[in-house]
Amino acid sequence: MKEWLVADDLETIALGAPILGTGGGGDPYLGKLMARAAMSRSGRVPMISLRDIPDESLVIASAMMGAPTVFVEKVPSGGEPVVAFRALERFLGRKADATYSIEAGGLNSTIPIGTAARIGIPLVDADGMGRAFPEIQMVSPSIYGYPATPMALADEKGNVLLIRDSLNNRWTERFARNATIDMGGSSMIALYPLEGWQAKRALLPGSISLARRIGHRIRLAWNEKTDPIEAVLQATRGRELFRGKISDLERRSETGFARGIVRLRGTGAFDSQDLSIHFQNENILAELDGRRVAAVPDLISILDSETGAPITTEGLRFGLRVVVITIPSHPKWRTKKGLELVGPECFGYDSDVPAT
Amino acid sequence: MKEWLVADDLETIALGAPILGTGGGGDPYLGKLMARAAMSRSGRVPMISLRDIPDESLVIASAMMGAPTVFVEKVPSGGEPVVAFRALERFLGRKADATYSIEAGGLNSTIPIGTAARIGIPLVDADGMGRAFPEIQMVSPSIYGYPATPMALADEKGNVLLIRDSLNNRWTERFARNATIDMGGSSMIALYPLEGWQAKRALLPGSISLARRIGHRIRLAWNEKTDPIEAVLQATRGRELFRGKISDLERRSETGFARGIVRLRGTGAFDSQDLSIHFQNENILAELDGRRVAAVPDLISILDSETGAPITTEGLRFGLRVVVITIPSHPKWRTKKGLELVGPECFGYDSDVPAT
Repeated sequence: MKEWLVADDLETIALGAPILGTGGGGDPYLGKLMARAAMSRSGRVPMISLRDIPDESLVIASAMMGAPTVFVEKVPSGGEPVVAFRALERFLGRKADATYSIEAGGLNSTIPIGTAARIGIPLVDADGMGRAFPEIQMVSPSIYGYPATPMALADEKGNVLLIRDSLNNRWTERFARNATIDMGGSSMIALYPLEGWQAKRALLPGSISLARRIGHRIRLAWNEKTDPIEAVLQATRGRELFRGKISDLERRSETGFARGIVRLRGTGAFDSQDLSIHFQNENILAELDGRRVAAVPDLISILDSETGAPITTEGLRFGLRVVVITIPSHPKWRTKKGLELVGPECFGYDSDVPAT
Repeated sequence: MKEWLVADDLETIALGAPILGTGGGGDPYLGKLMARAAMSRSGRVPMISLRDIPDESLVIASAMMGAPTVFVEKVPSGGEPVVAFRALERFLGRKADATYSIEAGGLNSTIPIGTAARIGIPLVDADGMGRAFPEIQMVSPSIYGYPATPMALADEKGNVLLIRDSLNNRWTERFARNATIDMGGSSMIALYPLEGWQAKRALLPGSISLARRIGHRIRLAWNEKTDPIEAVLQATRGRELFRGKISDLERRSETGFARGIVRLRGTGAFDSQDLSIHFQNENILAELDGRRVAAVPDLISILDSETGAPITTEGLRFGLRVVVITIPSHPKWRTKKGLELVGPECFGYDSDVPAT
């Protein structure tokens, strides 16, 4: 199926995607502005279903890496992610037939829309995580042994690097992370070039339309004055985990990541209970009165209790009234290989993943 | 002119080159073993004069980057520098007509000989420094604005990176240095691809034959029981700066470099005088009783007072009896552009360069 994304869709995706982003990926508002600027000529971008891409086509993910806040300051024109994309195409000696999101949530949901608009290729309605994760190897193509390489990195100064081969996707993460730090904290990247048949096997379908559906339900709830939290839960098949006020926040920057713990004091049905959420860019696990109640790969999202709007890690503030929800991850992540890539142990915690 | 380097030349070059290496570049003994292993099939490697390479030919430098000690442990077979070389050729879509040394001194004098032998191309009798310097941008092609890029880095694990474009050669140094640290402290590199006409304009001619001539004179002095120090001074047009014993040594590893100060107590004519030499891999400047008497870009080399054999930074030991010599740098380094690249200020000292 082919459909058209228009400017209003960006609005809706930018609202819904951060719920899948589970706190990470930065404010999609700015990705939305970038995509809108890119769309201004064509007015629309074609989106195709994962199942409809030809087996022999080439798809390449377009994304940013590093700190979203830095990226937004460095890349005002929005055209730069195309630089990395073009560099990879040139290295491959082949034009991409479509682009896709490496992760759902934050800037990386909307950046590929801008790239698609500027280059004039379709966006695939899919992504490599079904959510957001902080590292390059944490994508479903890794489950199938598909390399992130060749991968291109570019910055706004004219530096262009290619990681041609690496031992595995963790090594690619390491090289790319340090190059990104050298580039001033953020870079534009093009990676995971996949043949159509590989993409159909490895990517998670429907992520863009899911983000849009979530955003749509929230907007509808606002218009109809119904409960936006309930709308999110219905759109995501999630469940409410906790309701309360942010009572404490520990946040530190470590090796290019925002790590920390946010503590909530329960209200209503959760009165006198405490929830702690550990995060590394994204929310990693939640403990209710010290007992783990949710963990990666499942999604843990923090919503504003009044509006249902998602709150990113940077948006956390003392005193905010929030609802915490969990959403089951894609079943691929619950497999042995999936858990080895993105389970709690990958973030330094023991392996227990509670049922959602 | 074309001549042939044979196994015995390696011996001689490995002895003479570290005098141009001014303390840096590691023990060329191991580079010699690598080159000899590579030569074992052909038995000899053609060497051509810089002036004889055709204008439209392509020459590429073959080298190692990082800590020589680490490199030697990681690269026992000696074939690996070819991996980076081949990666760059493939990226350029063009085979190199010859290879060359990026610096004179240490491993990087002999590594290109091994690469030439394995690939079956000539070595150019030239280099990019006329000595050794610690950083990628510190080469004569930088004076002419020639980029180090595209540049390939490879390691023994199968990782291959390409720096396609960078803002300038300092940026290339930064990216390559951190990737080399990621690769475990050393990498194999191929860089500064030059057209023949560019090479003739920018490279420093005769470096390999100079290293061989120095080594030859030392061996001759050993055989004839004449003064090897005098032989070195004649071959290099250098002058004796100091004679004494190592009385103190401060050495620390910082951001991938060996930095420190070696202090000498004078003997003979230098009795009761003190010389301090500051180094960053290579010897940077010398102070006699607190007064600067030699500095980059000029060469400061420490020789064993009995044998005349060069002592690398790693070889410095308390109590060693040594002779310190200075050799005038290539005139290109004494220009304004040259001093901006490799003068004392580039190493954090004030700009004064005493006459040699």
